[in-house]
Amino acid sequence: MRWAEGFIAVDWGTTNRRGYLIAPDGRLVDEMEDDQGILSVPPGGFPEAVAQLRSRLGDRPMLMAGMVGSNRGWVEASYVPCPAGLREIADSLRWAEPGWIAIIPGVSYASGPAADVMRGEEVQILGAVAQSMVGADALVCHPGTHNKWVRLKEGRITSFRTVMTGELFSLMKEHSILSELLSRPVEIGEAFAAGVRRGLDQDDLTAELFSVRARVLLGKAERGDAASYASGLLIGTDLRIGLRGAPDGEIAVMGRPELTRLFAAALEMAGREPREIDGEEAFLAGARQLAELI
Amino acid sequence: MRWAEGFIAVDWGTTNRRGYLIAPDGRLVDEMEDDQGILSVPPGGFPEAVAQLRSRLGDRPMLMAGMVGSNRGWVEASYVPCPAGLREIADSLRWAEPGWIAIIPGVSYASGPAADVMRGEEVQILGAVAQSMVGADALVCHPGTHNKWVRLKEGRITSFRTVMTGELFSLMKEHSILSELLSRPVEIGEAFAAGVRRGLDQDDLTAELFSVRARVLLGKAERGDAASYASGLLIGTDLRIGLRGAPDGEIAVMGRPELTRLFAAALEMAGREPREIDGEEAFLAGARQLAELI
Repeated sequence: MRWAEGFIAVDWGTTNRRGYLIAPDGRLVDEMEDDQGILSVPPGGFPEAVAQLRSRLGDRPMLMAGMVGSNRGWVEASYVPCPAGLREIADSLRWAEPGWIAIIPGVSYASGPAADVMRGEEVQILGAVAQSMVGADALVCHPGTHNKWVRLKEGRITSFRTVMTGELFSLMKEHSILSELLSRPVEIGEAFAAGVRRGLDQDDLTAELFSVRARVLLGKAERGDAASYASGLLIGTDLRIGLRGAPDGEIAVMGRPELTRLFAAALEMAGREPREIDGEEAFLAGARQLAELI
Repeated sequence: MRWAEGFIAVDWGTTNRRGYLIAPDGRLVDEMEDDQGILSVPPGGFPEAVAQLRSRLGDRPMLMAGMVGSNRGWVEASYVPCPAGLREIADSLRWAEPGWIAIIPGVSYASGPAADVMRGEEVQILGAVAQSMVGADALVCHPGTHNKWVRLKEGRITSFRTVMTGELFSLMKEHSILSELLSRPVEIGEAFAAGVRRGLDQDDLTAELFSVRARVLLGKAERGDAASYASGLLIGTDLRIGLRGAPDGEIAVMGRPELTRLFAAALEMAGREPREIDGEEAFLAGARQLAELI
């Protein structure tokens, strides 16, 4: 069938998209990235946005993951409930064009009052499992706009929890009273470590964030340390939530390298063993697996 | 002296300002409010912005509180360290025009790693004490963009802590993935109460905020309840931090009535006795007291 002759995998998020041309032998032949996330596509504009992708990467069948399948995207693909593996996801693809453009559903978790959703991370996580980049019973930490703590069992996602760390840091940096202080790059050093410790030990994030500014105003902290401290504080708080009840052993930290290095450093400070996994590689692994299951 | 012949009190914040013309007998004669907060005043533009105030309220001496005295404002008035009463604040006024326009300093608190600042709330809080609206040894909760938990002893501010609740709710409402869900007005009902309970009992705010959306997507919560639940969650978290180590007894909740009613309701849910105090009345009381001390 056509998919065996190569395809285009698309990771289409809220604010940007990445496209990859995969050869029949699985090799990555070409790729592109731009800022045409789903929020920048006008109503009715998806066919044209897809035509642009195709003019760039070629006339091949397409497999799309991420927010493109959400209720704000192109074609809504309902969440697959946990436990969810590649088989369940392949069985629930939505076709935007029959046999030609498939939309990958997200995964949901609901248990008692707990409720959570993901879109896009599942391709990376299950791809990493299929390619033995991650064990079949691993705990995965997937930082991004929304960090996901994901439990795997026998190669399927059994539960997960989202922490809004990335989005909160962005909101603080772009729109809050701290924005001026947070413009510097985050560095893994003493200020970052102090923030991580505070986040791990204390549960007063919404107060502690304000004191980042007060300490600088009162000469108790260096202005240049504020971004690193605040990042550490948010990540430490994230770890405190995500590690609760977590099994011992290695933790896979998957995503963009500039984020996984921060979370891996913080996990080491918390006495855990992180292993970083490149999210793009994992995405390609997952897309290849799904293309074989179509 | 001139101040006894009446004056203009100004509460000049980040995003808006309020001016009040006070008669020699202390009566409020006229008032105005507009959106000319300090951030909307161009560099070098304060003299003209002040002339506008005067053309509106009259040619009287002026007493200014709030962010106008910050490092982003007109004339920086350094923070008065705790313990701070009206006397200490009157002694630290900065004069923008000698004898004619006084800028009220904020208050700072520093102890060990703790560091905090306020600007504007001190006039309300100490004014309320001077007029016996609040006891001399009270605990005050002052919601606003940044909620302040303030300890008073013998009529002076001895320590305080800021929680960024109001700003966080605004950021979520205006810029986050939750914005669409948070557009409805917050109501004190079952959804608000459930949020308050969660915030008081659990320390996972940054995860729980994301689940507000997930619950709606998965049909476990009503879309119309999301704003009230999220507000309750943030306020419950705020109370958990502010009530830690707090003495028993009444808590004065001071500020704008649309905010004090939410915090008072949440405090009752937490088993405490709140008493609401109108922030504007308290501000005028504080301004009158300070004018007498000049």
